[in-house]
Amino acid sequence: MARHFPQDGKRRVVIEAASPAVDGGHYPAKRVLLDVVDCSCDLVSDGHDSLGGRMLYRRVGERTWQSSPLVARGNDRWSSSFVASEIGRWEITFEAWIDAFATWRLRTEKKRALGENIDVELLIGAHLLSQAASRVQGELSALLNQAADRAADRSRSEESRFEAATSEQVVRAMERAPDLSSATRYDHILSIVVDPPLARFGSWYELFPRSFGTGGNHGTLSDVVRRLDYVAQMGFDVLYLPPIHPIGRAFRKGPNNMLTAGPNDPGSPWAIGSEEGGHKAIHPALGTFDDFRRLVREVRARKMEIALDIAFQVSPDHPYVHEHPNWFFQRPDGKIQFAENPPKKYQDIYPFNFECDDWQSLWAELLDVFLFWVGEGVRVFRIDNPHTKSLRFWEWCIGEIKAAHPEVIFLAEAFTRPKVMHALAKSGFSQSYTYFTWRSTKVELEAYLREITEPHIANYFRPNFWPNTPDILPEHLQYGGRPTFLLRLVLAATLSSSYGIYGPAFELMEHVAKESSEEYKDSEKYQLRSWDLESSDSLFDAIARINAIRRDNPALQQTEAITFHPTTSDSLFCFSKRAGDNVVLIVANMDTHHEHSGILDLDLPALGLKDNETFQVHDLISDVRYTFCGSRNHVSVDPRVFPVQIFVVRKKIRSEHDFEYYQ
Amino acid sequence: MARHFPQDGKRRVVIEAASPAVDGGHYPAKRVLLDVVDCSCDLVSDGHDSLGGRMLYRRVGERTWQSSPLVARGNDRWSSSFVASEIGRWEITFEAWIDAFATWRLRTEKKRALGENIDVELLIGAHLLSQAASRVQGELSALLNQAADRAADRSRSEESRFEAATSEQVVRAMERAPDLSSATRYDHILSIVVDPPLARFGSWYELFPRSFGTGGNHGTLSDVVRRLDYVAQMGFDVLYLPPIHPIGRAFRKGPNNMLTAGPNDPGSPWAIGSEEGGHKAIHPALGTFDDFRRLVREVRARKMEIALDIAFQVSPDHPYVHEHPNWFFQRPDGKIQFAENPPKKYQDIYPFNFECDDWQSLWAELLDVFLFWVGEGVRVFRIDNPHTKSLRFWEWCIGEIKAAHPEVIFLAEAFTRPKVMHALAKSGFSQSYTYFTWRSTKVELEAYLREITEPHIANYFRPNFWPNTPDILPEHLQYGGRPTFLLRLVLAATLSSSYGIYGPAFELMEHVAKESSEEYKDSEKYQLRSWDLESSDSLFDAIARINAIRRDNPALQQTEAITFHPTTSDSLFCFSKRAGDNVVLIVANMDTHHEHSGILDLDLPALGLKDNETFQVHDLISDVRYTFCGSRNHVSVDPRVFPVQIFVVRKKIRSEHDFEYYQ
Repeated sequence: MARHFPQDGKRRVVIEAASPAVDGGHYPAKRVLLDVVDCSCDLVSDGHDSLGGRMLYRRVGERTWQSSPLVARGNDRWSSSFVASEIGRWEITFEAWIDAFATWRLRTEKKRALGENIDVELLIGAHLLSQAASRVQGELSALLNQAADRAADRSRSEESRFEAATSEQVVRAMERAPDLSSATRYDHILSIVVDPPLARFGSWYELFPRSFGTGGNHGTLSDVVRRLDYVAQMGFDVLYLPPIHPIGRAFRKGPNNMLTAGPNDPGSPWAIGSEEGGHKAIHPALGTFDDFRRLVREVRARKMEIALDIAFQVSPDHPYVHEHPNWFFQRPDGKIQFAENPPKKYQDIYPFNFECDDWQSLWAELLDVFLFWVGEGVRVFRIDNPHTKSLRFWEWCIGEIKAAHPEVIFLAEAFTRPKVMHALAKSGFSQSYTYFTWRSTKVELEAYLREITEPHIANYFRPNFWPNTPDILPEHLQYGGRPTFLLRLVLAATLSSSYGIYGPAFELMEHVAKESSEEYKDSEKYQLRSWDLESSDSLFDAIARINAIRRDNPALQQTEAITFHPTTSDSLFCFSKRAGDNVVLIVANMDTHHEHSGILDLDLPALGLKDNETFQVHDLISDVRYTFCGSRNHVSVDPRVFPVQIFVVRKKIRSEHDFEYYQ
Repeated sequence: MARHFPQDGKRRVVIEAASPAVDGGHYPAKRVLLDVVDCSCDLVSDGHDSLGGRMLYRRVGERTWQSSPLVARGNDRWSSSFVASEIGRWEITFEAWIDAFATWRLRTEKKRALGENIDVELLIGAHLLSQAASRVQGELSALLNQAADRAADRSRSEESRFEAATSEQVVRAMERAPDLSSATRYDHILSIVVDPPLARFGSWYELFPRSFGTGGNHGTLSDVVRRLDYVAQMGFDVLYLPPIHPIGRAFRKGPNNMLTAGPNDPGSPWAIGSEEGGHKAIHPALGTFDDFRRLVREVRARKMEIALDIAFQVSPDHPYVHEHPNWFFQRPDGKIQFAENPPKKYQDIYPFNFECDDWQSLWAELLDVFLFWVGEGVRVFRIDNPHTKSLRFWEWCIGEIKAAHPEVIFLAEAFTRPKVMHALAKSGFSQSYTYFTWRSTKVELEAYLREITEPHIANYFRPNFWPNTPDILPEHLQYGGRPTFLLRLVLAATLSSSYGIYGPAFELMEHVAKESSEEYKDSEKYQLRSWDLESSDSLFDAIARINAIRRDNPALQQTEAITFHPTTSDSLFCFSKRAGDNVVLIVANMDTHHEHSGILDLDLPALGLKDNETFQVHDLISDVRYTFCGSRNHVSVDPRVFPVQIFVVRKKIRSEHDFEYYQ
């Protein structure tokens, strides 16, 4: 009977469970520039032979792989790493084989130690060495041939033959001449997107330029330039502007989302497009492209980036509507379908039909919107409601942009179901809005952080925590007063390495909502507001302090390495973050109305400390230093002073007069 | 600029995380005949449109798919199922699409409820109906066309037009006419191996036929037939025999593994092959092929299966050695390499070289060994040391056998590293030996069971628990006496749906080990033993009782649905298993020297009970019944009587005189 045999019959090593992989390699994992990317896999083989393996890596587009040896980590797990030295897309894979020489060396060493005759073993070793010599060239080959001759030379002692075959020089040479003829190659190539560091760590500030005019006038981009130092002095990295395009007239909304607007009402910036232009135009009331370019320059001069809001929807007045009516949903009555979610109707907004017959021209134009603003110097985009646009579109669009401009960062305003949020992240978004805005208790926050910091999720999903947005004034901020604003600020800024606030509403503690809602009353979405930036009540100083602490402490520049510590008080929420020697320990009083005291039950190894070690904790807010000893330590947090203590953990300075020093 | 667009640009639904999948679909999941196979996946799409989906399934080799609708289970998870109506390999995949008609219906119903004019909506609905009509034929098409006409007929009331478009009949017809033009097909086909039920549930009994002779003679297969009722009356399903082939003479081992054998020493059955034949021969001292065929018939007449031990290694006298010297490891001195693991040497055993130049002829012959015995009526194989043979070989060999004989079951004697055990299971082994043999404390057993019953492992790894084997007399059996033998028996038989014992050593409580080892003294591996099967000390009755309980209680015929319940005593180990209405609750006293009492803290929902419910527990060992109430109940277990209580949980019989009955 004719049998079919597997092609890989002689490739005895099986490579499994490679990491980092998102959905088995279907989507790329995410890292940032200069990360040391740990890569690992299981190498499984029968018997007791020694294995060899290597990780292969390269930038996408490069022809040749670089390689780095795999090292056994126990339990058949092997790992290696590379430095993500350039932004852009990388790829990795793995190769492994039976290392006949290492197997032989171990076995022969054991026999030698037992005093057995190893003459035949030395002949076997000589054969392995001369085979290896034939796989390489030049000096390396000569060295291995010489070792083979000596190992086989029965005129020499077994001792000297073994030494010749296993000298450190020969062992190292053999590592450079592996027998790959029966090597297994992992059956996937895993992708890794390497982003600029801002994709992981950044403080975002959102403002409506039109509220920054003087004397009650419509603000301009130049007014924003005038206030840039205000933002920069608070220590923000990203200045994020709602859509800056012309605003439609048709069905324009009035103040507080009223159905009809007065002649001077400015409308919602998300009702994009008028006869003055669409997604590639600037609202004339905000200024010109020259003004915009100056804004970009001035922002960057302060080491910030500008972020634009891209909302793929149009007002009925948008040029697309008459130029490309087939991009929209056509109704049998000849009208274009406006956005609706019964009973809500949004007559001022037409959604795109991403599946229309002419979808390729639509997608190409939407991609071109991004490329246009990239051409104007924009590197950061906040995408409005991405979950109402095709996932396939985002995967394609972001892929196309990042292939040419890998430095570009996309923040998904994905307030939607968890799996859709995750699908958007897999599709290419660099960051995502989260449920943080509504997680207000210790139990909720710990559970949520544990979920999003699980490695298989953190590989692709990067959170950005917002205590407020123009759309959301959460209930706790409506009633909690200054301590709650401070608490939410610090929680966002320390739990997540990326966070943002919508200001000046935040620092001025705007807390008046439309009745029984989480919408702002007199929302800037529909009208100009005037903000007293010099108010003595402002949280300006606290925000500046928190952002400075974030910049000074690498532990706060990442989200994943977090540990939660039990406390004896339900009101005291304690967690720590660590990056190398930098350890930050945070104790938040979640009850902003009362002082609470309690005992922390610290996980000392997570803080880099030993059992019973004495150490110093230095509250970066109050500048007070405490001496802690061991795991159980008392704290007291008075929210009327400040609702959170942000300790940096320091090892005790060792005195040479301390007896222990001499041990 | 010419853009490339994705082919699936209009396929808006993303299908992810399909289950059951082993390593993303790389290996098949395992089920048994008549299982209801639950299949599920995430369906993720943008926006709020209604989705439709179906699971596609078929036997491997069938051309057309059967389909079953996917049902939403919450959180974007969808599922369906099929009945594994035949053994063999099945495959499944998924398809999903935007359901424009369901989306339209929901939206229109909402508008109608709000009293809005829905004339235009009805025209849209009519269009969807007539499109659907064109996708189908005959009556179905006519029905949909009629509905379309009525929905569009402005001479009718909106109410009657809507009713015509959304009658139950029309909705059901629309489900049969889905628009698949933009359907997403999952990008993997997942495999499922459906085995006979014995692959999941069976009680195994191992014996050495040669010890069953009369008057000190070498036992034969006919002697085994004479003793079959002894095995059958204990309730075993599988009679497993160590290798039955001719035994080599060269370097034959004597009693207690002595290096030299006397002229009458029988040698180890694992030193396979002599001039009398190899892996396809029967040791003449055991009998003839006619005897073997009679044994198979008699075993099967008692509703048992015979399991043969296949050990792929040879004695130096095996015919393969001179017929195919190239299948072995050749040494430079012209000799064949025997098995060794310094300082241990096994001169009586030659391993195969699975990577030899002639590997294809070797693999074909080894496959043929299995097919030969399958031809002799063997359906169950226990594979000796599979972890020292190529994983690629097993995947190929088992695949070839099961393609022609899907009823065949393979038990891996894989006492090796965890990832190798798992790799063997993925490669096709139906069952595996486990670490149970050495897990003796409550903490160890609970942790181990939690590990192997995790769904992603249980999908491919089926345990078979052995309290002892000819190779292993674990320390606790050496010193624990009768209560420990009983404890280990019940733990194996209730924790795992497949378990086995090596007898009669087990039921006769053989406990004498070679000094400081877990090897039996005077092991049957190297000499004949004589067993007093009628001993009044035998565990025969207890084993028969336990196997009967296993047959009566479906809860014990599966391993995965297990729950652990806390107790107030470190010595009381409590767990339950459930299959439908059948619930078994086990309380084991792990300290076989002292009686222990304590309180069980039962997880009532896991027992199918409500808070504070009163119920009966009936100990199937002592036949005593207790009334329990709520979660906390007292138990006391005296190991001198019996170390385990095996309760069946019964709901209270409701009396019509009980007031509650009338509520």
